[in-house]
Amino acid sequence: MVNDTALETLYKTVDQNQDDYVERLREAVAIPRYEARDIGCHDMDGVNLQLPPIILGTYGNDPNKKTILVYGHYDVQPALLEDGWDSKPFDMIETPKGQLVGRGASDDKGPIIGWLNCIEAHQNADIEFPVNLKICFEGMEENGSEGLEELISKEADKYFKDVDAVCISDNYWLGMTKPCLTYGLRGICAYKVAISGPGKDLHSGVFGGTVHEPMTDLIHLFSKLVTPSGKILITGVNDDVALLTDAENQMYKSLEFSLSELHSAIESKTTIFDNEIETLQHRWRYPSLTLHGIEGAFSSPGFKTVLPAKVTGKFSIRLVPNMDPNRVNELVEKYLKDEFAKLGSKNTISVECLHGAKPWIANPNHWNYVAASNAVERIFKCKPDLTREGGSIPVTLTFQDALNKNVLLLPMGRGDDGAHSINEKLDRSNYVQGIKLFGAYLHEIASCKDE
Amino acid sequence: MVNDTALETLYKTVDQNQDDYVERLREAVAIPRYEARDIGCHDMDGVNLQLPPIILGTYGNDPNKKTILVYGHYDVQPALLEDGWDSKPFDMIETPKGQLVGRGASDDKGPIIGWLNCIEAHQNADIEFPVNLKICFEGMEENGSEGLEELISKEADKYFKDVDAVCISDNYWLGMTKPCLTYGLRGICAYKVAISGPGKDLHSGVFGGTVHEPMTDLIHLFSKLVTPSGKILITGVNDDVALLTDAENQMYKSLEFSLSELHSAIESKTTIFDNEIETLQHRWRYPSLTLHGIEGAFSSPGFKTVLPAKVTGKFSIRLVPNMDPNRVNELVEKYLKDEFAKLGSKNTISVECLHGAKPWIANPNHWNYVAASNAVERIFKCKPDLTREGGSIPVTLTFQDALNKNVLLLPMGRGDDGAHSINEKLDRSNYVQGIKLFGAYLHEIASCKDE
Repeated sequence: MVNDTALETLYKTVDQNQDDYVERLREAVAIPRYEARDIGCHDMDGVNLQLPPIILGTYGNDPNKKTILVYGHYDVQPALLEDGWDSKPFDMIETPKGQLVGRGASDDKGPIIGWLNCIEAHQNADIEFPVNLKICFEGMEENGSEGLEELISKEADKYFKDVDAVCISDNYWLGMTKPCLTYGLRGICAYKVAISGPGKDLHSGVFGGTVHEPMTDLIHLFSKLVTPSGKILITGVNDDVALLTDAENQMYKSLEFSLSELHSAIESKTTIFDNEIETLQHRWRYPSLTLHGIEGAFSSPGFKTVLPAKVTGKFSIRLVPNMDPNRVNELVEKYLKDEFAKLGSKNTISVECLHGAKPWIANPNHWNYVAASNAVERIFKCKPDLTREGGSIPVTLTFQDALNKNVLLLPMGRGDDGAHSINEKLDRSNYVQGIKLFGAYLHEIASCKDE
Repeated sequence: MVNDTALETLYKTVDQNQDDYVERLREAVAIPRYEARDIGCHDMDGVNLQLPPIILGTYGNDPNKKTILVYGHYDVQPALLEDGWDSKPFDMIETPKGQLVGRGASDDKGPIIGWLNCIEAHQNADIEFPVNLKICFEGMEENGSEGLEELISKEADKYFKDVDAVCISDNYWLGMTKPCLTYGLRGICAYKVAISGPGKDLHSGVFGGTVHEPMTDLIHLFSKLVTPSGKILITGVNDDVALLTDAENQMYKSLEFSLSELHSAIESKTTIFDNEIETLQHRWRYPSLTLHGIEGAFSSPGFKTVLPAKVTGKFSIRLVPNMDPNRVNELVEKYLKDEFAKLGSKNTISVECLHGAKPWIANPNHWNYVAASNAVERIFKCKPDLTREGGSIPVTLTFQDALNKNVLLLPMGRGDDGAHSINEKLDRSNYVQGIKLFGAYLHEIASCKDE
C-alpha cells in the first residue's frame, strides 16, 4: 500500500523547491559538451580519445527493497545560435508560457537532473526512499553510446546484479497533453546491393542499347522490394509479423495523436493512411522498407550522359515482433538473387547485410509498467497512453538482453520538445510534474505485490 | 574521268614528303592548348573570355569546280604525363611500330594538318587542285563548340554560300584494318523527373511505413522505362523507328567488327546480344534508354537511414530516324504522368526535358559518299564499311541544317586510337594514306557526273 500522505508531502516539497530545480537544470544546460580527450579509444580520425565517463551511482542498499536502475545521458546534440535559435542554446531561458528553452533541456538533462531532484525531495520531506536506486548516466548517447554495451555486459553480474527493473527517461509523449509509457521499438536490418557490369563507366551514346546496364538492373530489383503504399514484397518477410489482437487494436483508440500533427512534422500531407490508428500501427507494429539511395550512379545537379559501371543500392527494413534479423537476412538475400536471376542480365550481384538490430517489446502488464501507470494516474489524473516507437533506442535492447529484466520507457517531455532541433524546450510543468511522477513511480513499485 | 596518272604522281609526292608531314604534326601537337582570354563570352565562372578563333579559309574560286567544306578542330582534351602517359603528351613520338603518339595526333590535329598537306602535295606535284576548298577549323569542339552554331548560321548565305558538300574528319574506323564512311548518328533527349513529398528529409524509423516515399515512387517509375535487355517501354516511342530494310541489314554483314573488341573496350562480357550485327544495330539504328542516376537520395559511401524528401531521376533516350525530339518529349511526359497516376501516391511529379537533338542520317548514295567510297577503293583496295555511330557529333547536324547539303564523316584514324585517353596515337600509315585519301576523294568529286 502506497502511503498517500507521504506522497502528498513529497509533492508539496517538489512544488516548493521547483525554482531551485529549474536553477539546477539551467546550470546543467550551461555545462559545455564534454570534450573527448587523451588516450581512450579510437575516434573517426584514428586518434586515441578518452570517452566521456559513464556515471554509475547507488542510492540505498536495503535487501528488503526493490532495486531500480535509471538510465539517462548528459551529452547533447551540437547547437549554435547561428543555427536559428531565438536565444543562446546553452543559456537556458524560461519563456512567459513556462517553457525552459535550451539545448538538452528535454534531451536528456531534464530527466537526469529530475532523478537527482527526486532523491533530494525525499530527503527534504524526510520521507524514506522507497527503493534502492542505481543510476547509469552516459555521455556518448548522441554518438552511438560507444563503450556502453561493453560496460553493461561486464557489470551485468556485478554492479547491475541486483537490479529488478530498468527505467529509461529519454523519449517523449506522443502528443502535447497526455503522458505515455513506451513498451516497444522497431528493429532494423540495413542492406547494400551492388550490381557490377562493365569495368569502367561508359558513354551512353556509344554503348547504350548494347550492354546490360547495372543501373537498370538495380532499379528493377528495387522496384520489387516495396510498393508505393509501403507493402513489403519480399517473400516471407511479413510472415513473422505478430498478429494484431483485438486488445492491442483497442488500445490504439485512446491514444492522443492526430494526423494534423504528423502533417506539420513532415511539412506535407503525403501520408499513406487517412486515419490515426493505421498510421500509428504502421509506424510501430508493422515493418517498413525505405530505399535510401544509390552509390555509383550520377547524383550531382546537372546532367551527365554516363552509363554507370557499378551501382550500389542502400535500403533498410524496420523490424517488428516477431521478426528475427537473421531470418530476414536469409529471406532478403534469397529474394534479391532470385529476382535478379529473372532479369536475365549478364551483370553480377552482391548483397550485404550491414547490421541487424532486433525489435524490442516489453510486457506492459509487468509490475514495472503497472507502477508507472498508477503513478501517471496519481499525477495527471488520466491513464497514460501505451505507445511504441518506429525508430530504435539501442540501449533499451542492451539493458534487456544483458540484465534480462523488464525495461520501461518513461518520458518526461512532450512530443513537440524539439530534441535535436533549434529552440529545444522542456515545459516547466513537465519538469516539475515529472519529478513528482518519478517519486510516485518508485513508491508504486515499493507497494507492488506482483514480482 | 579521274586522271589516274596525276593521282599516281600525287601519291608519290605524298610518300616522298611524309617525314615533313610527320614533322608538321609534331609541331601541331606541341602547340599548347589555346587559352581563352580577354573579353568574349561568359565562361563557367561568369568571367568574360574571348573564345579561341574559328579559322575560315578558302582555296580556289573556280566557278566550274565544286566547292567542298572541310571541318576539323585544333583544340584537344587535357593531358598530363601523370595521367599515365608513357611519353610526354605534347611531345609527339613515333614508336617502332610506326604509331605517332601525342595528344591530338588523331583527335583532331592529324586530319586538319592532313588537309593542309594535301593542298601542298598538289602544289609540289604541280597538279591542279580539283575543287574549291573551304576550311572551318574551330578551337572549342571539346567544350561543346561554343560559338560555332551562331557563326555557321550567320555565314550560311555568305562565306558558306557556294558549298556543295561537307566533309568532316573527326571520327574513327570501326576497327583496326578497314576504312569506313559514317552516314548516321543518334540524337538524344535528356530528362529530369522530380518526385516531391515531405518538406524535408525524414528519419526512416519514425516515418517509414506511414508516408509515401518519393524514392519508392521514382524507382517504380524508372522500372517502367526500360527492361534489363534494353527494350524501351514508353508507349509509342518505338513507333517511329525506321524499319530495317533487307538492303540495310545486308550491309551489316560485311562490317569489320567483333564482339571481342567490344568486350575489351567495356572490360567485361556483359553485352546483351551474342552477335555483332544485332549489337551494331542496337548501337546505331535503334533507340536506347539509359538511367544515369538520382539526385537528392543518399549517394555517398556508408549508410544513412534517411527517407529523402525530394528525388530527381536523370535519364536520356538516344534517338534514331525517324524519331522526333518534340514527339518523344510528348510521349515521355504523358507516359510518366500516366504511370505515376497508377502508383496512387500523394507525392507530386514534375518532368523536364533538358535538351533534344535530332538523329542525323545522310544519304550514302549521294555523290559525296560515292566519291569517298571510290577514293577508299583506290587507296585501300577495298570497299569502305558504311557505319553509323551511337553518340552524337552536334556539328554534323548543324552543318546539314544550316547549309542543307550532304555531310560526310570521313575518318582518318583507327578504332583504337584512344582519343580522349592516355597514349592517344595515329598510325603513320593512316596519316600518310589519309592524306592520299583526301586527295583521291577530291579528285573523285571533280569527276562526279551526279549532282
